[in-house]
Amino acid sequence: MFQTFEAQSFPEQGPPRLAALRVLMAQHEVDCFLVPRADAHQGEYVADRDARLEWLTGFTGSAGFCAVLQNVAGVFVDGRYRLQVRAETADVFTPVDWPEIKLVDWLKEQMPEGGVLAYDPWLHTKQQIDELAEKLGGFALRAVDNLVDAIWDDQPAPPAARFTQHPMEHAGESHDNKRARLAADLRAKAAVITLPDSIAWLLNIRGADIPRNPVPHGFAVLHETGKVDLYAGPGKADDVADHLGPEVTVRDVADLIDGLKALGGSVQIDPASCPAAVAVALEGKKTVEARDPCVLPKARKNATEIAGARAAHERDAAAMVRFLAWLDAEAPKGGLTEIDVVTALEGFRRDTNALRDVSFETISGAGPNGAIVHYRVSEDTNRPVKPGELLLVDSGGQYVDGTTDITRTVIVGTPTDENRTCYTRVLQGMIALSRIRFPKGVGGQHLDALARAPLWMAGMDYDHGTGHGVGSYLSVHEGPQGFSRRYKGVLEPGMILSNEPGYYKEGAFGIRIENLIVTRAADAIAGGDDREMLDFETLTYVPLDRRLIETDLLTTAERDWIDRYHADTLALLAPRLEADTLGWLQKACAPL
Amino acid sequence: MFQTFEAQSFPEQGPPRLAALRVLMAQHEVDCFLVPRADAHQGEYVADRDARLEWLTGFTGSAGFCAVLQNVAGVFVDGRYRLQVRAETADVFTPVDWPEIKLVDWLKEQMPEGGVLAYDPWLHTKQQIDELAEKLGGFALRAVDNLVDAIWDDQPAPPAARFTQHPMEHAGESHDNKRARLAADLRAKAAVITLPDSIAWLLNIRGADIPRNPVPHGFAVLHETGKVDLYAGPGKADDVADHLGPEVTVRDVADLIDGLKALGGSVQIDPASCPAAVAVALEGKKTVEARDPCVLPKARKNATEIAGARAAHERDAAAMVRFLAWLDAEAPKGGLTEIDVVTALEGFRRDTNALRDVSFETISGAGPNGAIVHYRVSEDTNRPVKPGELLLVDSGGQYVDGTTDITRTVIVGTPTDENRTCYTRVLQGMIALSRIRFPKGVGGQHLDALARAPLWMAGMDYDHGTGHGVGSYLSVHEGPQGFSRRYKGVLEPGMILSNEPGYYKEGAFGIRIENLIVTRAADAIAGGDDREMLDFETLTYVPLDRRLIETDLLTTAERDWIDRYHADTLALLAPRLEADTLGWLQKACAPL
Repeated sequence: MFQTFEAQSFPEQGPPRLAALRVLMAQHEVDCFLVPRADAHQGEYVADRDARLEWLTGFTGSAGFCAVLQNVAGVFVDGRYRLQVRAETADVFTPVDWPEIKLVDWLKEQMPEGGVLAYDPWLHTKQQIDELAEKLGGFALRAVDNLVDAIWDDQPAPPAARFTQHPMEHAGESHDNKRARLAADLRAKAAVITLPDSIAWLLNIRGADIPRNPVPHGFAVLHETGKVDLYAGPGKADDVADHLGPEVTVRDVADLIDGLKALGGSVQIDPASCPAAVAVALEGKKTVEARDPCVLPKARKNATEIAGARAAHERDAAAMVRFLAWLDAEAPKGGLTEIDVVTALEGFRRDTNALRDVSFETISGAGPNGAIVHYRVSEDTNRPVKPGELLLVDSGGQYVDGTTDITRTVIVGTPTDENRTCYTRVLQGMIALSRIRFPKGVGGQHLDALARAPLWMAGMDYDHGTGHGVGSYLSVHEGPQGFSRRYKGVLEPGMILSNEPGYYKEGAFGIRIENLIVTRAADAIAGGDDREMLDFETLTYVPLDRRLIETDLLTTAERDWIDRYHADTLALLAPRLEADTLGWLQKACAPL
Repeated sequence: MFQTFEAQSFPEQGPPRLAALRVLMAQHEVDCFLVPRADAHQGEYVADRDARLEWLTGFTGSAGFCAVLQNVAGVFVDGRYRLQVRAETADVFTPVDWPEIKLVDWLKEQMPEGGVLAYDPWLHTKQQIDELAEKLGGFALRAVDNLVDAIWDDQPAPPAARFTQHPMEHAGESHDNKRARLAADLRAKAAVITLPDSIAWLLNIRGADIPRNPVPHGFAVLHETGKVDLYAGPGKADDVADHLGPEVTVRDVADLIDGLKALGGSVQIDPASCPAAVAVALEGKKTVEARDPCVLPKARKNATEIAGARAAHERDAAAMVRFLAWLDAEAPKGGLTEIDVVTALEGFRRDTNALRDVSFETISGAGPNGAIVHYRVSEDTNRPVKPGELLLVDSGGQYVDGTTDITRTVIVGTPTDENRTCYTRVLQGMIALSRIRFPKGVGGQHLDALARAPLWMAGMDYDHGTGHGVGSYLSVHEGPQGFSRRYKGVLEPGMILSNEPGYYKEGAFGIRIENLIVTRAADAIAGGDDREMLDFETLTYVPLDRRLIETDLLTTAERDWIDRYHADTLALLAPRLEADTLGWLQKACAPL
């Protein structure tokens, strides 16, 4: 079992640790020390060793930071975590509403005149430190060795998982090719790459350093020759030495700073992800600031990766259908809990014999818990799945050929009219994005409204993006593509995204419907212009709960889309399913 | 008659003028001189005196510039004007595809090493000159007195129209109030305002210095005290002295530079509109760069302005209905031309006895001329209005209570199936924007796709924005609001916009349907969230051509919207119309 459900936080451990940190701060003559959630690679998940924010404060959320002073310790968290931070931290910590309250403004209130603000330069990006330095005014910024590490006696060692090869049959392009074509477009003599999923993509390797995302912890320097220096912990690259070949030199991560200092010419860095420590090591050289050169090529999946995504989604869909059939049989009897749902679903995915990990912690929210957008069930919150309530299940799997992410909302027993109208409006938004064609130059920020319009027309909305990019056996949240007003840039063929509108009624229920889709060149339409247009191929084929669809609200085109989607689902999955499940699927996929 | 139709350009006059300019450039030891379309106020229309680009080159378009060197004279025009520039200029001028080809890049090819690039600092914004200076590298920039003016013997005098009061019954807020509330939010001791529509709005005055837009040419300085220095040509403000009162000091525009130099403290300028000459006059002072402080308050129309807009649109709609009834009777007989259409329409608007000007040159495009997005009919291009062809008419009026802008496309005789399906898809997009509700924080860039989606789904699109802001008895094109992917910012209550999707089949026909709409707080919907939402009130009520609507393509909601729109149109206009026209309108507004 990948997932666990123990109570996640121990607020009582915070106060003695905070006290110890303050003693050390006083010894170092530091007025404030910053403890971020991030590690040196700025990813969504961190290794146990890097869970400094959680260890110090008890807060387990996936974003935020603590600013520790002698008389106050502010825990900065965004809107998702306002309630959670109060439950998980002792009252020696002061929750701060971030980003409404900015760190610099808060510091101006709290810091003594001329005070010293200390930080670990590996855990903050160049951009973050530059912005602090620009706005800080009267305080001094000082990079220090991590003070939390110094008081954390039983801190785990850095993760030491060995890298594995991501073979050509799944990658579709050799790392020789990738290195050569990226090197040709470099804007300097070399580029420093610090994002693990960029390194994974560039070198066709995967890792096991953090849960859920198979990324390798390390750093890389791509030279204009196409050669790469890969900096990793001792022995981590031993199993991929042959795969990496003579143009990739493996070096000890402890030598990174020396290696950077020895670089000859200009160096390209991405200020949004590059640790401040790396920027400091490059001082005196000409640096060019530009986006990590792997980000866009990685987002544009090639034909092999798309074929792999189809295969992974088909396999995952069969597991989802077995799960939904089981749920439909068991839930009405009563007695199931949210944890039972998570456990059963992981079991169905494991039965594929291909599951490498779940792609994130399954969200299983019954009744009012479904309205908590980032809900994660634990033994403390575990709720029965009751007849007459909606159940929202958002989950995914990591397979060597692709990463999946799917949300289905189902009714146990009989839905209310409100359940049905809300579900149908969410579904209409999901269909609108699934069906849309659009010219080149359009970005997800321009299409987001299409998914929201059916809800908007009823005076409703949802407070999250409509979709995020998804990696290819990599991170389930991947940039730069996405559907929300905050995105920039344009959609390009090969980009995989989630399409997941929702509706949440606090204290009552939550609805979300999510498919993954991949951007592609659209077929020409008779009578259309000859301009180049794009559309989306759907990857996820799992039935939608027909009991929740209010057909009177649908246009003919929407109804046709659903019937066609269900027919395609049945045709795709029938060969994979045993008789019982197939019988269930046939009913679930019947025309409206 | 406001509009004229004579041949607009005289290409043969260009070569001798260009030769004279080059002689003067050599005398001044200048390698390149820039001749922009813009005047010092960066508006869409210029006075005859300021039509330097047209006088020199023959090019009559509304945007572009000429870069004159001894051996080449490049005329930079955008996609709208690629054909027109070749027709209007002699071959001593070289058309350049702008903005694909940037001025700096072109200059690097053409300029001699270390050459001097001269410009009139009144005609270029600070931002334009700063960007040139930054990218220019090896050349020197030199501000000079305008070299075209020096060779233009019969150059008209600056416009001298007297300003008029825009009374409270139309403005809805006194200029005392406006000055006081803007002064309270200034980011410096004073702000320089160079946009004529900003000055018009701030001081509740109007002018007659250029055609079509009733803006007053002048400059203003708003002080943190709320007092204003108004710089204008001699005598121009004489009729509004009482209206302006003691807190507005009228000064001669010739004293502007001295006045700016005498300013005491920090000064706020808008680099996007402030002439470089103004920025130079402020050198040595602390300047704060910020958007012209009038722009957003002006865009948020108050209740009086919105009531005025409704009244102006109702009056204009009655004229439009008389025009459409006349057209429907006359056009099928044959013999009408595009010019006849423009003349008749202006006549119907004049018959209101309230028309101050047309708000732009009417676009009257029959058959294939309808596909030329910025078509303006002249005696050379005038085309018969033939049975079996579509006619696109885009027009508007300036009334003291509001500015209108409306496009209707009608069929003369019987439409083709293609006419009907294309018209219906354009109409579906127009309806989608008309009906949408959306939360605060959404901008026109996010809604643009709603208007295009029905076309996109058929493989079609249009190469212009879906809508622009509209002023209140001011410019028919007004920022910052608009519907297109290039906009930033959010929609706010009171913003008036056009809603005008289209479809253009080159060589065959053009379709555009345009209403004006005003943003407002939406009524709450039963069962909706309690979040604040906005929607649009339609201002334009003129029937849509029922013969062009393919009802089978419509959803029930779209069909209901059209029937309701037509019923509202009939109810609104019936009291204003004579029996004949009313009979026509009743048929035109019958339910589908």
